[in-house]
Amino acid sequence: MSKKLVFGHQNPDTDATGAAMSLSYLANQKGFDTEAVVLGEVNKETAFALNHFGLTAPRVIEQAGTEVDSVMLVDHNEFGQSVSDIEDVKISHVVDHHRISDFHTADPLFYRAEPLGAASTVLWKMYQESNIEIPKGIAGMMLSAIISDTLLFKSPTTTPTDEAAAKDLASIAGVDIESYGLDMLKAGADLSDKSEAELIDIDAKSFEMGSNSVRIAQINAVDLDNIMQRSAALEESMHKEIADNNYQLFVTIVTDILNSNSIAIVLGDDTAVAKFETAFTVSLKNNHADLPGVVSRKKQVVPQLTEQLAK
Amino acid sequence: MSKKLVFGHQNPDTDATGAAMSLSYLANQKGFDTEAVVLGEVNKETAFALNHFGLTAPRVIEQAGTEVDSVMLVDHNEFGQSVSDIEDVKISHVVDHHRISDFHTADPLFYRAEPLGAASTVLWKMYQESNIEIPKGIAGMMLSAIISDTLLFKSPTTTPTDEAAAKDLASIAGVDIESYGLDMLKAGADLSDKSEAELIDIDAKSFEMGSNSVRIAQINAVDLDNIMQRSAALEESMHKEIADNNYQLFVTIVTDILNSNSIAIVLGDDTAVAKFETAFTVSLKNNHADLPGVVSRKKQVVPQLTEQLAK
Repeated sequence: MSKKLVFGHQNPDTDATGAAMSLSYLANQKGFDTEAVVLGEVNKETAFALNHFGLTAPRVIEQAGTEVDSVMLVDHNEFGQSVSDIEDVKISHVVDHHRISDFHTADPLFYRAEPLGAASTVLWKMYQESNIEIPKGIAGMMLSAIISDTLLFKSPTTTPTDEAAAKDLASIAGVDIESYGLDMLKAGADLSDKSEAELIDIDAKSFEMGSNSVRIAQINAVDLDNIMQRSAALEESMHKEIADNNYQLFVTIVTDILNSNSIAIVLGDDTAVAKFETAFTVSLKNNHADLPGVVSRKKQVVPQLTEQLAK
Repeated sequence: MSKKLVFGHQNPDTDATGAAMSLSYLANQKGFDTEAVVLGEVNKETAFALNHFGLTAPRVIEQAGTEVDSVMLVDHNEFGQSVSDIEDVKISHVVDHHRISDFHTADPLFYRAEPLGAASTVLWKMYQESNIEIPKGIAGMMLSAIISDTLLFKSPTTTPTDEAAAKDLASIAGVDIESYGLDMLKAGADLSDKSEAELIDIDAKSFEMGSNSVRIAQINAVDLDNIMQRSAALEESMHKEIADNNYQLFVTIVTDILNSNSIAIVLGDDTAVAKFETAFTVSLKNNHADLPGVVSRKKQVVPQLTEQLAK
């Protein structure tokens, strides 16, 4: 069987990276020949986790078809969020926890998605079902991924299965969930050295919603004021991205990870912006809106926006 | 939690019906409130199986949104093969063994697909993982579905997991796989009372391939000559369907289930027909081509045609 690459979405976060490492290890135990890779440099949070567990970051790839015929995707499925030449390779496996959209295959495949807090939680279930032992480092990365995606179980995407998985993984990895988790989240929220153009790209994803091309960036922060003081420059960077990529809507969600609230910065076509206001029953003031209690793009932003923009 | 309907594809076959009954039972054991339904009258093979295990056919529905907000799909995902108002309801679960295409959701969902011989085999794995006992009748229908989809393990879609599942299900259902299976397949292949219009609709599915709308019907038979003697009238019915539905290509695969060979009857636009010939390296004679060894639409027809028609 020829080699396969395993990777998460562009702008890799801790779940995209950790789930790729986890699925690659699991698949190799089952006889596949795979390598976990990433579609960009890992962020500070992921680097903190890798360093804590003594692991090196997976290799960055730009294209998959130059190396392999077939790939496994984790933590995403939408082609617009995947490797640039995704249409040229066969997708044999997907392990995910997002909506399915902008995705298709010619052949039957293995697809495992569940509405859980992290792709790594789905993988934890797959390890349980296979009776395969999770190595300490992989367990540490999977735990980090669950903490990252659920913001230490405060996101409404959190399920009892995520908490059970985290508990089990923490005992394998030998860390205290709360203290390790807070340190890791804070390492990721250190944005002091980032330009505005970088801030709106660290955790940004593209979505097709109806006939609209929508970009949604999320900035996790411990000090919202610090970020919002830079909103004029952030908006300038967002305008540039809109012009360069013909987005109908660009939303940057600045999330207070300690208090679980967000402020949205919203730019784009008048019609699309008006639909954002309808979707969240808000009136933008200077392109900004408070979104109290919103921390999950997947559950609290994408479905609501899709419903309006698909009309 | 509000009630959900569980159903397979249009023109229900034994897997679409059996997998719906199986997932509905499993989901209800896990606390959901579901009802298995079908999108049309069950065929003779399925009726034989239901009768053998003393079960009544699930209720036929025309629309889902009039009854429920949310549905579970089995044995299909493509909207063109699903209930007419599929876009108006939320899809919370999918259990399947086909390619993914013409499918999207706004929300994260439970999606479980594996490249196995039948959706019912995927469900058998889910029962094993959940440690939930399969009732005798449900086991009988799941076994029937596996026998039907794999043509008694002769289709190239058959995997060792399908054979293991069938063995386990047969012991629960209390039947001999070979003798029961052959009786069931023969009951399904009794086509004596079918009009040509019915023959090309019993097991027909629509596919989007590139910009082409493609219809692929399969007729399982024990006597190919019997069917091919009616090919002029079959082609007339296919022409009518093409005109009524603007298909670019209509392929009817007449399959000899005992000897595992097929003859294709191919009609449509010249370009699409030429691409069929390229896909299978055949030259049509009077719109017919031998396809030796071909028995699986999913594995031996759809990917090959998609590759050509997507160009």
